[in-house]
Amino acid sequence: MQLLPPVPGAAMEKSYVSVFLLLVAISCALAAKDAGKKETKETKETTAKPKLPQTLSRGWGDQLIWTQTYEEALFRAKHSNKPLMIIHHLDDCPHSQALKKAFAESKDIQKLAEQFILLNLVYETTDKNLSPDGQYVPRILFIDPSLTVRADITGRYSNRLYAYEPSDISLLYSNMQKAQKLLKTEL
Amino acid sequence: MQLLPPVPGAAMEKSYVSVFLLLVAISCALAAKDAGKKETKETKETTAKPKLPQTLSRGWGDQLIWTQTYEEALFRAKHSNKPLMIIHHLDDCPHSQALKKAFAESKDIQKLAEQFILLNLVYETTDKNLSPDGQYVPRILFIDPSLTVRADITGRYSNRLYAYEPSDISLLYSNMQKAQKLLKTEL
Repeated sequence: MQLLPPVPGAAMEKSYVSVFLLLVAISCALAAKDAGKKETKETKETTAKPKLPQTLSRGWGDQLIWTQTYEEALFRAKHSNKPLMIIHHLDDCPHSQALKKAFAESKDIQKLAEQFILLNLVYETTDKNLSPDGQYVPRILFIDPSLTVRADITGRYSNRLYAYEPSDISLLYSNMQKAQKLLKTEL
Repeated sequence: MQLLPPVPGAAMEKSYVSVFLLLVAISCALAAKDAGKKETKETKETTAKPKLPQTLSRGWGDQLIWTQTYEEALFRAKHSNKPLMIIHHLDDCPHSQALKKAFAESKDIQKLAEQFILLNLVYETTDKNLSPDGQYVPRILFIDPSLTVRADITGRYSNRLYAYEPSDISLLYSNMQKAQKLLKTEL
């Protein structure tokens, strides 16, 4: 359940990007730790009511259909023959929040997202295939209806292949288009 | 993802209950199959909008705090030292629906449920510990904050130990009280 420590950048030719992403990783990891502490404290001391009822969209697009669990998402992707988009994020990570805002406000992204089975997760699953280069947030992975993780569909950052910044929204859009070209599983 | 076929009743002295529960199982299994067919058809033919936004409670208690995934639920149970209650159900299973109605309308159950980490699932997890006597719905399991499945907390039906009918609400209430007596993990 813990975030793994940042992996040292493999491609140092992109050192600015690496340093930037390292900072991203550190800030999100710290935010996550704080969140964990706060949560334990709150649960013990009070029984504060949340804003009810909770939604599956979590602000990533209230008009979209979100699946609840990884198991449900895999089932639906397979049976509907649509690609699955999984967004890992954290409520207390400013980079997740910024990406969420850009994602929710982009009409193009929201429209294209209707063609996907969608899942956003705050807690990591036990499936190692969902962390090809580590567990970090924000992190977006695509899964083909054949249930193959599309590790080939990556963002701009060499040390965190599946991370996106708000300025990468158009890259994310074209990656979603890539994911729509389904893998051919029958030869 | 498929419901397993009903397991033949082990304790035939309770044959009425067994036959009744067998019927429950068959009707829910049929309902699940129909749901699967309908879903595939809908996804292919239309892009019908659901009632938005979807909630995590799914009608089991909109005023309660529901976790999204099994991973989240385990994390929260452990860190808050509260027992976890997991309800497996299906939207198209009349017995799940009847239990849900009784569960949501019982003020005592709703109040006591505030003391639990809560998760309701339509899709089975991959954890075999959550199906000690098979995968069927409705099925309610308790997990201690030490992350031990309380297989000892059972309902009235010998061939489906974790099934409850609407008339079993008071038994469910006392089972919730049992689950509140946490296992002592340190000797």
